[in-house]
Amino acid sequence: MVSEEHPRYASLVLRNKLVDGYERGIASAHGLIAHGRGEAFDYLLGEQTSESARNATKVACAHLLTANHPVLSVNGNTATLVPGEIAELHAITGIPVEINLFHPSAQRIERIADHLHAYGVVNVLTGFDFIKLAHIASDRANVDKNGTFKADVVFVPLEDGDRAQALAKLGKTVLTVDLNPLSRTAVASTVTIVDEVTRAFKNLVSFAQHFKSESHEYELDLLKARFDNIENLKASYALMQKRLRSLAR
Amino acid sequence: MVSEEHPRYASLVLRNKLVDGYERGIASAHGLIAHGRGEAFDYLLGEQTSESARNATKVACAHLLTANHPVLSVNGNTATLVPGEIAELHAITGIPVEINLFHPSAQRIERIADHLHAYGVVNVLTGFDFIKLAHIASDRANVDKNGTFKADVVFVPLEDGDRAQALAKLGKTVLTVDLNPLSRTAVASTVTIVDEVTRAFKNLVSFAQHFKSESHEYELDLLKARFDNIENLKASYALMQKRLRSLAR
Repeated sequence: MVSEEHPRYASLVLRNKLVDGYERGIASAHGLIAHGRGEAFDYLLGEQTSESARNATKVACAHLLTANHPVLSVNGNTATLVPGEIAELHAITGIPVEINLFHPSAQRIERIADHLHAYGVVNVLTGFDFIKLAHIASDRANVDKNGTFKADVVFVPLEDGDRAQALAKLGKTVLTVDLNPLSRTAVASTVTIVDEVTRAFKNLVSFAQHFKSESHEYELDLLKARFDNIENLKASYALMQKRLRSLAR
Repeated sequence: MVSEEHPRYASLVLRNKLVDGYERGIASAHGLIAHGRGEAFDYLLGEQTSESARNATKVACAHLLTANHPVLSVNGNTATLVPGEIAELHAITGIPVEINLFHPSAQRIERIADHLHAYGVVNVLTGFDFIKLAHIASDRANVDKNGTFKADVVFVPLEDGDRAQALAKLGKTVLTVDLNPLSRTAVASTVTIVDEVTRAFKNLVSFAQHFKSESHEYELDLLKARFDNIENLKASYALMQKRLRSLAR
């Protein structure tokens, strides 16, 4: 039990949720370490959604809603932390959800598929019917034939650098959530949401609900056209620097 | 297997070592997350020992060598990552090694004790014969009667904020290793080594060998007297800021 008076309560609750996901065979040991890395960046970013992150989330939503073949590719951490939000996004947009693990095992993929089904995700792609992508050496090159392979827009939260770069090289529109604005993933993607994944998904669901309610085609096209990912990432660097200065006082 | 060509090879080797320690029941799931947090700070600090970290390591060594009752308090991560260096420091200085876990279990304590014995640590304190310290609410208040309880100098690498603050309040000299120069542990300690724990321990062993070789009493006293922890931490803040600026270019 975490005391609510602990200075970093929200972060500790999330951490326990992830450990729980690990113990249930959904998240991996490496996923726990990756989560810790994100925690440190979130701490430096002030543990709240910045204006630039909110803007990126809106633009990512515009891409998802206007794509021909979008796909949401999830790993163990994402499935553990935001299963409800994945299901909501899936219900609103009809986006298929592909399971793609950095440390794949058939057993873990099946557990995650069951977990997502239980939250109401209908269309889960397991990657068992896969094609090997160019530009990647590892097992991570394998993507689902009906998901990432044919997608024009791939939403890959908490992605690793090699894969994000390979997907971008293949000409796909890459959307990601990454708390490290300096990572290869952040820099290689079309739209990088520098935010903690549960906050990002909650906002994404809100935007999707808003934009789905009536015709916003022109607005969505404008959002996409006006967005410059590298410029937007600079706002996160600046925020980290500002916060370091104030913490160091 | 991690490719040696990966841009962050050394960090990935360490990560695998920790996952291995977790699978052997030495490190904890929460320890994996904490390690990830450290990784992010190390990345921002340039993944090498800074001048200020080297200086703090030397001063920490001075405290260890001149203490009446020093103790080295280790957790699962420290036992996993630097068992050989713990044994060397123990052999050179005779410092007892106490096991103190944030998520304690008798089974894990016994595994860590066996692990340390196998590396040659003779005097392992398990904390089974404990006394409850003031100023802490949790299980972490329990410390070994013959270790931390009677120690004047406690070396607590990778410590949590509550305990570091409580030990300092009790008037003990607190030495720590913490990659987050802004943490409560870093700020509450007498000497904070802002460095990755394997690099810090290797340097500490070297310094201990050097200072043990002949009489350095006056030099050790000077090192202690001249050190200002908060001033030294500021060098790490400055380094992180400088590195963020260059990474963001």
